Amino acid sequence: MQKTRVLTGITTTGTPHLGNYVGAIKPAIAASQDPNVQSYYFLADLHALIKCQDPRRVQESRREIAATWLALGLDTDNAIFYRQSDIPEIPELTWMLSCVCAKGLMNRAHAYKASVADNEAAGQPDPDKGVTMGLFGYPVLMAADILMFNANKVPVGRDQIQHIEMARDMGGRFNHLFKGQYFTLPEAVVDEKTQVLGGLDGRKMSKSYDNTIPLFVSEKKLLKLVRKIKTNSLEPGEPKDPDTCTLFQIYSAFATPEETRAMRARYLEGIGWGDAKNELFEYLNAYLREPRERYQALMEDPGHIESVLQKGAERARAEAAPMMDKLRHAVGLGSFI
Amino acid sequence: MQKTRVLTGITTTGTPHLGNYVGAIKPAIAASQDPNVQSYYFLADLHALIKCQDPRRVQESRREIAATWLALGLDTDNAIFYRQSDIPEIPELTWMLSCVCAKGLMNRAHAYKASVADNEAAGQPDPDKGVTMGLFGYPVLMAADILMFNANKVPVGRDQIQHIEMARDMGGRFNHLFKGQYFTLPEAVVDEKTQVLGGLDGRKMSKSYDNTIPLFVSEKKLLKLVRKIKTNSLEPGEPKDPDTCTLFQIYSAFATPEETRAMRARYLEGIGWGDAKNELFEYLNAYLREPRERYQALMEDPGHIESVLQKGAERARAEAAPMMDKLRHAVGLGSFI
Repeated sequence: MQKTRVLTGITTTGTPHLGNYVGAIKPAIAASQDPNVQSYYFLADLHALIKCQDPRRVQESRREIAATWLALGLDTDNAIFYRQSDIPEIPELTWMLSCVCAKGLMNRAHAYKASVADNEAAGQPDPDKGVTMGLFGYPVLMAADILMFNANKVPVGRDQIQHIEMARDMGGRFNHLFKGQYFTLPEAVVDEKTQVLGGLDGRKMSKSYDNTIPLFVSEKKLLKLVRKIKTNSLEPGEPKDPDTCTLFQIYSAFATPEETRAMRARYLEGIGWGDAKNELFEYLNAYLREPRERYQALMEDPGHIESVLQKGAERARAEAAPMMDKLRHAVGLGSFI
Repeated sequence: MQKTRVLTGITTTGTPHLGNYVGAIKPAIAASQDPNVQSYYFLADLHALIKCQDPRRVQESRREIAATWLALGLDTDNAIFYRQSDIPEIPELTWMLSCVCAKGLMNRAHAYKASVADNEAAGQPDPDKGVTMGLFGYPVLMAADILMFNANKVPVGRDQIQHIEMARDMGGRFNHLFKGQYFTLPEAVVDEKTQVLGGLDGRKMSKSYDNTIPLFVSEKKLLKLVRKIKTNSLEPGEPKDPDTCTLFQIYSAFATPEETRAMRARYLEGIGWGDAKNELFEYLNAYLREPRERYQALMEDPGHIESVLQKGAERARAEAAPMMDKLRHAVGLGSFI
């Protein structure tokens, strides 16, 4: 029986934070241990170029993210873990798909439409102001990421369902035009239970709000950040509502159900904010200590990360290269002999 | 002193005809013999996918065109002769350039605007009907073709000047954003004297008018086609105007000035159309006999064409690979070590 192929791209413009861990990294690493699944994880660094023109930021983020996933125990003997930019077949396939992708499809893509709406709201006469061809066409690159490896399932947020539909559209159109089952049509998998963590200011933890707690900061910095989490003005001894409290939410995302129940009781008993913050810090610190040590060791050994990613690229290209060869023949670009 | 780098792409959707030879192939091969020039000639087969979804047509055209240029004496020890699709760095660079290319620039590209105008003229409510992302974005691929090899000059028709401007725009923007002289900005070279040959029906000889005389048809077929060239109803003995006669125009494109003068005199003396056609046939047939034999031998030896193109691809990639490596580092996609 063939394994289900599950593919996940990881954006490489930021530093992984607690919210990324809880919402994405932890469930992904758990899912990759399923023996019925062949997982593909890749650093979506060609996508990063759309938003980030700061080479140091892109480079640093790639290294931090690779080190994070490895430190957290991604099994790279099982999962195929690679950098998108190490697979030259991906931009090649992007071009082929461009030639079967209607421009009208991209006109209707969310990210592009949002940019146009922003320009219109700002009274900007050019609706395409600030829109690059990268931003406009990135669903084609994303389709190439997915179709290249014949992924069956792509775990995504709600806002990305449209892009998976687009990948199906391009794959189906190519299959039809060139008369063959070249591509498997992928399915979006939306996890309705995905946990969204609050940030320092209580809003969703997100790089764009600048309210994150990075996953692997020093103990001292972690304490400082936890102390900055916004709480209300209730005094120690006054009962507190755990369900509207960011501290409690973060705690429960890491703790066992039992520990969470015990903490809930302490809220109702009127735990002071200082104590609640100390408890959260202690818990997180203990939880993260070992992976943090592994992370730091990895960050000091870029050669090791590079070799792991090169091995991943080799495995990915062992599939991508024969696939592209087949596709080149399909469209009339095969060798003459 | 560094040689001037001149780059020429050859579309691969048709069979080379007399008009291609006179207008493009002959001057290009002559120009490539200039010792002060490093020429790059490539089969633009990724571009071919925009217009042609018939794999056999694309494959056949690539082979015919390669055989034609070789049969006509392209010196591949001097010129670098390759297939675009053999250079994976080109689609990779295309993506990088997409991320610095304003969508607005593509909105103003001729080919796209012509498609929109056609849709509007046809009363089609969707102005993008039939427009693929390949058609919309191909000036970015063209910019990658040119900038990859730091071409100084690109010989083009008037309609292509805009695309060279766009390549300059993207190259300049990349240099600016990533703070370096990564790309040479190319210049368009428009040959005002380019000869345009008439076809069977007297209009410009062009695949799209289906009025061509292929360069290397059999003797019998060549005679048949020459006899089909449209003439007027003047009788033998009546003086004829050479300057409005397709037969004369084709003759003079191949003959020496002396021979052309002699033929002009015969027109004024009233040469019959049958004789004029026989003369043209004899001249063309003698002119083309040797290259046609070489062409036929090449067409029967696809392994040889393949090896010549592979050698060209090796030379091209010897430049493209280190260039891409530099560019990857520039944008933050370099190796970690």
